[in-house]
Parts: sequence; C-alpha cells; structure tokens
Amino acid sequence: MDLKGALAARTRRMDAALQEALALEMDRKLLDAIRHLPLAGGKRLRPAMAMVVADAISGSGERTIPFGVALELTHNFTLIHDDLMDRDDLRRGVITVHKAFDEPTAINAGDVLFARAFEVLTDIECDDATVREIVRDLARTVRLIGEGQQNDMDFERAESVEEGQALRMIELKTAVLFETACRGGALIAGGTPEQVEAMRLYGLNVGIGFQLQDDLLDILSDEATIGKDRWSDLREGKKTVVLIHALRNARPKDRALIEATVGREGVTDDELAKVVKALQRAGSITYARDLAKRYADIARSHLAPLPPSGHRDVLEALVDYMVTRER
Amino acid sequence: MDLKGALAARTRRMDAALQEALALEMDRKLLDAIRHLPLAGGKRLRPAMAMVVADAISGSGERTIPFGVALELTHNFTLIHDDLMDRDDLRRGVITVHKAFDEPTAINAGDVLFARAFEVLTDIECDDATVREIVRDLARTVRLIGEGQQNDMDFERAESVEEGQALRMIELKTAVLFETACRGGALIAGGTPEQVEAMRLYGLNVGIGFQLQDDLLDILSDEATIGKDRWSDLREGKKTVVLIHALRNARPKDRALIEATVGREGVTDDELAKVVKALQRAGSITYARDLAKRYADIARSHLAPLPPSGHRDVLEALVDYMVTRER
Repeated sequence: MDLKGALAARTRRMDAALQEALALEMDRKLLDAIRHLPLAGGKRLRPAMAMVVADAISGSGERTIPFGVALELTHNFTLIHDDLMDRDDLRRGVITVHKAFDEPTAINAGDVLFARAFEVLTDIECDDATVREIVRDLARTVRLIGEGQQNDMDFERAESVEEGQALRMIELKTAVLFETACRGGALIAGGTPEQVEAMRLYGLNVGIGFQLQDDLLDILSDEATIGKDRWSDLREGKKTVVLIHALRNARPKDRALIEATVGREGVTDDELAKVVKALQRAGSITYARDLAKRYADIARSHLAPLPPSGHRDVLEALVDYMVTRER
Repeated sequence: MDLKGALAARTRRMDAALQEALALEMDRKLLDAIRHLPLAGGKRLRPAMAMVVADAISGSGERTIPFGVALELTHNFTLIHDDLMDRDDLRRGVITVHKAFDEPTAINAGDVLFARAFEVLTDIECDDATVREIVRDLARTVRLIGEGQQNDMDFERAESVEEGQALRMIELKTAVLFETACRGGALIAGGTPEQVEAMRLYGLNVGIGFQLQDDLLDILSDEATIGKDRWSDLREGKKTVVLIHALRNARPKDRALIEATVGREGVTDDELAKVVKALQRAGSITYARDLAKRYADIARSHLAPLPPSGHRDVLEALVDYMVTRER
C-alpha cells in the first residue's frame, strides 16, 4: 500500500481545484488575502479523506471535489480567524494573514472564504436532497468549531480543566470537520446508512487522534518542521491532554515548574525546554501518545462495513499516519 | 394601506423565530455574544420583505420564516464583524459585541451566526432544488458583502473615489442582501421566472435607495434616533455619494474645510457640524436624496409582474419608507 502516492495524487487534484475555486474577479487586496493561506500548500487531508471514502464505497471520489474544496476553504477560514484570535505569526511556514495584511482584512478574508465554501458546495454533482443534508452538516460543523475555539480560549484562563473537557474541545475544534468530511464522502458516494454512519465515526475518531498528535507536535517538533510557531500551546497555557496529565501526575517540583511557567507572559525558550523535560518525566507524552492510538484503533474498527479494496487499505494506513505523523 | 401594522406583525413573527433559532446549548459566553445583537431589536426589514414578497405571489409568507431567520442572522453577523473592523462602539442603541465582550469573541460570534444561518436555511419547507439555489444565492451574497466591506475600507484611504465606485460599493455591501431576500421570497413562493427576476431587481434597487438614505441619516440624525455612532462616516472619511458630490461641487472654501476635516484623526463635533453645513450648501444632501428617489422609482416599476393585492401595496409603500425613513 503506497499511502504517500495515494495521498499525493489527491493533494495535486485538490490543489488544482482550489486554484480554480479562488480564481475570482474581486478587489486585489482581498483576493490576495483569501488566496494567501489556502494556496500556501497544506496536506489537504480532509478533502483527501472524503475522496478516498467515496472511492472505497463506489469509486466516485472525483464527484467529491466541490465538497473537498468546501472542506478545505472552511478549514482555512477557521485557521485565519483562529490565528488572529490567538495572535499567532506563522502557519504552514508563511506569515499569517493578519500579519501579512492587516486585522480587518483577515477578518474579512475569513468571512469570504467561508461564504465561498458554501457557494462551491452547491456545485456537487449529486441529488439536491444530499446537497441539502451536506449543507446542514457543514454549517452545523462550523458552528461547533466556533464553540470549540471559544472553549479553547476560555480554558486558557481557567484554573482547572478536566481531561474530558479537553477531549470534548478537541472533538469540537478539530474532529467534527473530519467527521463531516468522511460522512459527506459516504453520502456523495451513495453509501448505505450503515456505511454513512461508520464513516462518520471513522472520521470523528481519527480526527481526535489527529489532534492529540498535533498537540504532541507542538511540544516535540521544531518550527521548521511543523511550519508554525513552536510551543505556542505552552506559551498560551493551552489546556491540552498532555498538560492536564502532567498537572496531575508530575512530581511536586516539576508540577510547580509547569504551573509557574506555562501560560506566563514573556516566558523564554529555555524555560519551556525545561517544561518539556518535566512533561516527559511525568509520562504525559507517552500517555497522550497511547490515548491517540486508542482513538486510532476505534477509527480502524469502523472500516468494517466497507468492501475490501485498495482504497479501504488507504483509509487503514491513513489512521496510522494521522497519529504518528511528524508534521 | 397600514404599512406600520403590516411590518410590525412580521417583525414580531421574526423576533419569535430568531429567539428560537438562537436557543442553543453552548458555551455561556459565546451564547450571550451571538444573542447580543440579533435579539437587541432591529427592524427585520430583510425577512419582512421576503415574507411580503412570498405573500404577494402565493400567500406563502409563513414558509419563508427559516429563510428570513437566515437573512437576519447573516445581516447580524456582517454587522458584528463590520463594527469590529470599523471600531464602532454603538449599534441599535447597545454596545457593540467586541466592546461588550472582547475582540476574539466578536470574531467567533460572527462566525457562529454565519454558520447558524446556513444551518437554518436547510429547514425551509420547499423542494430541495430551491434550497440548493437559495444556499448558492446567499453564499454568493455574503462573498459580495465582504468585497463591499473591503472596498469601503480601501476607499477611506483612497485619494479620490468616483460616484460609480461608491454606488457599486453600496450595491455590494448592502443592496445584494435585499436582492437575495426578495428573490428568495419569490423562489420559495413558487413565482414564475419573470416574477423571480422582477423581485430580484425590486430588492436590488430598493436596497441601493435604502443605503443612500442610511448614509444621509449618518449625517443628519442624532445618536439617540439612529441608535449608532453619529457622523461615524465623516469621522472615518467614508467616501459616500454625498461626500463625493460635495468634493466636486462645493465652493472652494467649503471644499477645503471638508478635505481638512473629514477622516482626520481626533476631529471634534463642532468641526463636523460645520462640515454638515458645507454639505448642505453644496446641494449634496439634496442630490443624494434625489438619487435615492430615482432608485425607488426603478424598484417600484418592478412590482408590475405581481398580481394586485394588499401585499403588493405593502411592497409599494415599503419603497417610500426605505428612502425617507428617519431611523
């Protein structure tokens, strides 16, 4: 199974479709702003998954393209607004939109991408009832993502956050879009109700595993590899599963260090490097890694209702990739 | 024809529907933020127009309710983001969302309202093909509104703006939503293609007239009446039709005053009062008022394809209201 090849072909296909969807006649500055992030690369994981799901069900991956574009535009719109809300400077190795342009333009560019997503969604070549259902799904998903973002911001200021709350936040902020991607792919492919529901659960669980790994990368990777600000979560005091575990399980001295450092204004890289060591000592990295693998196992189990095929193998390999990837 | 009564009944109906659409289980702060502006009152003009159009075509106004909710949520989302981009403090007599909460929450609340609009849109009781068309229409409209907002911001910094550009900006930022409201009402009502197109043009032209009057109110009204910052346009240097006319037609001394005052940092109310006098002397107020009336005449002419009825009379009376209203 050549996962890399299977994904690369779909990434190229999506890159072309995105170019096309963003070839609009409009105000030059706004056009540059809406193209800045979506065309700066990216793995196109959500559209790729919708496509592979549709291929696995009825070989109809190509029909998911407008849906994939809508997913990717939605994803990019949320990134642009989140980076502004979180005051991040770097994303996919490029300067964030509010830094490259200005804050009002970043707000506006996000809104326009969001609108464009729903416009493109109506181009899906499938029956109108399915389009209605997918519009509802995606709209609800964006609403939940907003709720997740709000939790994320609230939790940074909260005294104590439970692991359950952190996982629910991950579900809202990240996993629901994977859920919608996989469910939508199955709907467009004309899957059975059982397949549609299985793909929803596949996407949801793989999405949670993906975000747990994303949180680990923020701690363990360097900037050049992940293409965004390193240790951004620790700087902002984001209540990740890793941090919550450490606050419960680290030895007293390490816990005091973590509490005094994480989320503090003006914290240095040296201090954060010490926090990373403390997280490792508390077993919190290993704990989050194991948890991600458990979600991956659940995701894999939901592939059963799909007929055996190379496409299903891709979905299976994708699960491992999502929770072990290094960027 | 009791326009006030006809509108009031529909405003009440919409207020109830909006309450319902925003009765969501979510993060308390975010919920308060998304309810802050939509439930602070407002004329509900766009939904009311969609309703009256549907009533005039086939007595099916009630069926437009979810569409009306979507229009009103969309309108409120754009107001929340615009107020943030423009740094306005007051709207409908209440503090703007970014002031009452904070900027990240205002960005997020706008996004969530936008998402909710498309979610509710899928509840319209009509055939799926019409829903698909309305989703496309509304999505395209929001994209154009974003473009209009960008023009608005660009124009404030521009050396010179033509009247044609200012009118195009009004069309994008305001009129397209009235266009979509009236066209959508006609679609839901099962209007003929001729009626659908006539209602589109009715909404578009009445929307331009509405915004011309809105720009006049910014100049001529006091804060308590319009419920938002007075002279906000003059303070920000917004290139309205009035201002563009005055810069061409005012006597040299007045023009110099206008150029030195409008859009200047820290400008005082006394100075702006003098600018208003200069705009009046240049005939620019009268000019914009006449232009609004011309758009009103065009709008009225597009009512011809509707059968005579009390509802059509409401649409006719609405035109006059839109371009002469005092708040």
